Amino acid sequence: MTLPEAKDLSHLLSAEAASRKSSPLKSAFKYYGLPGMTFLGGGLPLSDYFPFDKISADIPTAPFKNGIGAQVTKEDKTVVEVFKKRELNDPAIKDIELSRSLQYGYTEGAVELISFLKEHTEMVHKPKYSDWNLISSVGNTQSWDATLRTFCTRGDNILVEEYSFSSALETVHAQGINTIPVCMDAEGIIPSSLAKQLDEWVGFNKPKLLYTICTGQNPTGSSLTAARRREIYEIACKHDLIVVEDEPYYFLQMEAYTTDLEKRNQRHVHSHEEFLKAMVPSYLSLDTEGRVIRLDSFSKVLAPGLRFGWIVGQEQLLERYIRLHEVSIQCPSGVTQSLTNGLLQRWGQSGYLDWLIGLRSEYTHKRDVAIDAVSKYFPTEVTEFVPPVAGMFFTTAFDASKHPKFEEFGKDPLKVENSIYERGLEEGCLMIPGSWFKVEGESNPPQPKVPTTTNPNLIFFRGTYAAVPLDALEHGLEKFGKAVKLEFGL
Amino acid sequence: MTLPEAKDLSHLLSAEAASRKSSPLKSAFKYYGLPGMTFLGGGLPLSDYFPFDKISADIPTAPFKNGIGAQVTKEDKTVVEVFKKRELNDPAIKDIELSRSLQYGYTEGAVELISFLKEHTEMVHKPKYSDWNLISSVGNTQSWDATLRTFCTRGDNILVEEYSFSSALETVHAQGINTIPVCMDAEGIIPSSLAKQLDEWVGFNKPKLLYTICTGQNPTGSSLTAARRREIYEIACKHDLIVVEDEPYYFLQMEAYTTDLEKRNQRHVHSHEEFLKAMVPSYLSLDTEGRVIRLDSFSKVLAPGLRFGWIVGQEQLLERYIRLHEVSIQCPSGVTQSLTNGLLQRWGQSGYLDWLIGLRSEYTHKRDVAIDAVSKYFPTEVTEFVPPVAGMFFTTAFDASKHPKFEEFGKDPLKVENSIYERGLEEGCLMIPGSWFKVEGESNPPQPKVPTTTNPNLIFFRGTYAAVPLDALEHGLEKFGKAVKLEFGL
Repeated sequence: MTLPEAKDLSHLLSAEAASRKSSPLKSAFKYYGLPGMTFLGGGLPLSDYFPFDKISADIPTAPFKNGIGAQVTKEDKTVVEVFKKRELNDPAIKDIELSRSLQYGYTEGAVELISFLKEHTEMVHKPKYSDWNLISSVGNTQSWDATLRTFCTRGDNILVEEYSFSSALETVHAQGINTIPVCMDAEGIIPSSLAKQLDEWVGFNKPKLLYTICTGQNPTGSSLTAARRREIYEIACKHDLIVVEDEPYYFLQMEAYTTDLEKRNQRHVHSHEEFLKAMVPSYLSLDTEGRVIRLDSFSKVLAPGLRFGWIVGQEQLLERYIRLHEVSIQCPSGVTQSLTNGLLQRWGQSGYLDWLIGLRSEYTHKRDVAIDAVSKYFPTEVTEFVPPVAGMFFTTAFDASKHPKFEEFGKDPLKVENSIYERGLEEGCLMIPGSWFKVEGESNPPQPKVPTTTNPNLIFFRGTYAAVPLDALEHGLEKFGKAVKLEFGL
Repeated sequence: MTLPEAKDLSHLLSAEAASRKSSPLKSAFKYYGLPGMTFLGGGLPLSDYFPFDKISADIPTAPFKNGIGAQVTKEDKTVVEVFKKRELNDPAIKDIELSRSLQYGYTEGAVELISFLKEHTEMVHKPKYSDWNLISSVGNTQSWDATLRTFCTRGDNILVEEYSFSSALETVHAQGINTIPVCMDAEGIIPSSLAKQLDEWVGFNKPKLLYTICTGQNPTGSSLTAARRREIYEIACKHDLIVVEDEPYYFLQMEAYTTDLEKRNQRHVHSHEEFLKAMVPSYLSLDTEGRVIRLDSFSKVLAPGLRFGWIVGQEQLLERYIRLHEVSIQCPSGVTQSLTNGLLQRWGQSGYLDWLIGLRSEYTHKRDVAIDAVSKYFPTEVTEFVPPVAGMFFTTAFDASKHPKFEEFGKDPLKVENSIYERGLEEGCLMIPGSWFKVEGESNPPQPKVPTTTNPNLIFFRGTYAAVPLDALEHGLEKFGKAVKLEFGL
């Protein structure tokens, strides 16, 4: 089957991105390495002067039979060794020798690592158009910054979930770009609400980009269903939107929550196929026009400090990112690339899936402990929650109007929220007030109000089960539950 | 002696930089790690799931008695080992354990590495005001991008050397910022010319920033004398300019070129003090007001692929960079930080100076070979050159009016330049035409012309002695010399 090509979306580029030129020096580089040609063109240091002769790493051996968090022992240890000189590396393994990874390099990322990730992407997302590509970044935060520079100009409006990651919003606001919130419910963006907003848009400066953390959303913990993704993608096509899916938590999808302990023990994926099938379809997998920009990262699945992410989208748009990266970050760390590629080449695609399955199992268990504790310690009379199916976050919501001081607080739900936050601190547990993630922003001229069915007195708190040992997690939630009871006089 | 504080220069910030806010989540982080507090605030993965248990590197042992390019052998090898768990690391060495470097981290850079670089900066530059600081970046290209975002807005004018690094210019132009060239001679920027330009500036939008590669300039190979630096710094103070010194080549300063072989063998620095004294004073070292932003990097002294640079300047301005980095690059790679810090801690300040002295010696030798070959193979009748005292580049200049086809080419020096470039390629040696680095740009309204004493028919080519083995370098220059002779009919 031949796949169609992406649509030409170059009209959506920012002035900055459209104006980027290739370096004139590039035209000289075609002579580099030609037989008989002495190339005195580039200011590259000789690799003889790189003070790293070999780097190595101890990593666990796939398929991680004792779990991914188990201590690495002599028996199940794999050693990644990467030498400076190409000829010293194992010819059977596609390593990135240090003389290359530590030199000025390919802005797109080293070919071995990028090939691995492309194969992985093909396996997981099966893109539906032919000219998609994948380039490296130094993590999703930077990918998002680069995305804004590529599509937006000061004064533009973009669409974001009505609660969103505050750091991602700050990236937007400092660039003088305005955020227009899109209504959400417990499952994420409400498609009909988004459609209405765009259909009834007043004035020029209509948003051309939707930013969404659709799986394990930060801060709400919600995950968008496949059906909603399809609806939203259709809306994006109709209104010529770029869809940016920021998906660091995609592989932290879990088994459904159940209180039935017997069922709980039976839940798990049995094979790579089952695992891949259990994944919610990404926007990338639905994209036929090349209007999805997918931001992916090792931060939540291997380690944040690697500072390695990747961007998937149509080639023609990614070329503009490469021009930007050439004159900003250049490329991710070569040490990161040699070691991470070394790890992936030794695990193989299959071992990497084993690792991701291991993560799924760990996060499922953590989520279970958190939700069990919320059920046990929080007062059911006032607490609402939806067990998350992906990500690091869960939320607990309360009807502020049931708070004894609601009248005294002038019926301001935010005052109730703050009172609970403070009481939580007194009892010794910190969860983040939902209002801290609330997206503010109105276009000029203002748009018609989109009706919402959400209870305006509903407040919520974001907690994480990712960062704390399980006993501390349970104890913390006991304390927060007590704070809530005290607040509501229960 | 108590040093004065930097001047408040916050009026020079860009709209983007001035508007950056701290994340509201920061206010919660003060509760992190408090006794009795369960912190469910942050989405950090547990370090148990980082698949790197230990990383290590083989590095040469200071003081590098066989030279810095020598093959590392068993006898003079040092092994850097950094474990995930803090308690497994050697307590006598200030390593950055992987559980920290691979976690979300300090945007400023890991404290051990930053402290080392601050101590080094104090030793080399001895800043003259008290509240200077140093933060990490992912290399000078990104530091320069961040600097532009911090001080400039679309439509601004900035001052740059009339020939400059094309990639740095592209960073400027894509942001919609205009470059105003400053006249240079063989020693770099001509201070009187700069003064005249600013004194006679017409209209608003006067430049507020000077970008300069003052040591081993790219592409001219020139190095600015201490006297000129002082003059230019005074001009910057008078006209309220930020001075950005982009100094990747600062430690590629060399011994003076001499054809006297006996003298040549006697030249070298004998001690750390002599070495430090031989360095040309940086703008940072002259700065009393905190208006210098210094961009430094490991790219030319250790390896480009580390993607680690640092920015030195007054604390109040660097705080704005940190806010930018928090929502873009976050921080340099933790693998890079753990290994590079591991190397530096094992070498110590003294060993690092030994390494830099080794580099000085290597580059002096390479430069000598290049200049010897130019003297030997290029026709003296038409060739002008100044042996560089720093950096990776040398230039050879020619009077285009002496070219036999000058009249036929319509007296266009660029046609002569291109003809020589093409002939070089035919003979098998590529050097980059100087005009490729020429800065274009005029302000609106246009400024009065600054008179220049430079011969308008002088064209030049940039070569490098950094990237090629010495025999190939000599052979290449023989070929290019032949091309020049053929072109000029000599």
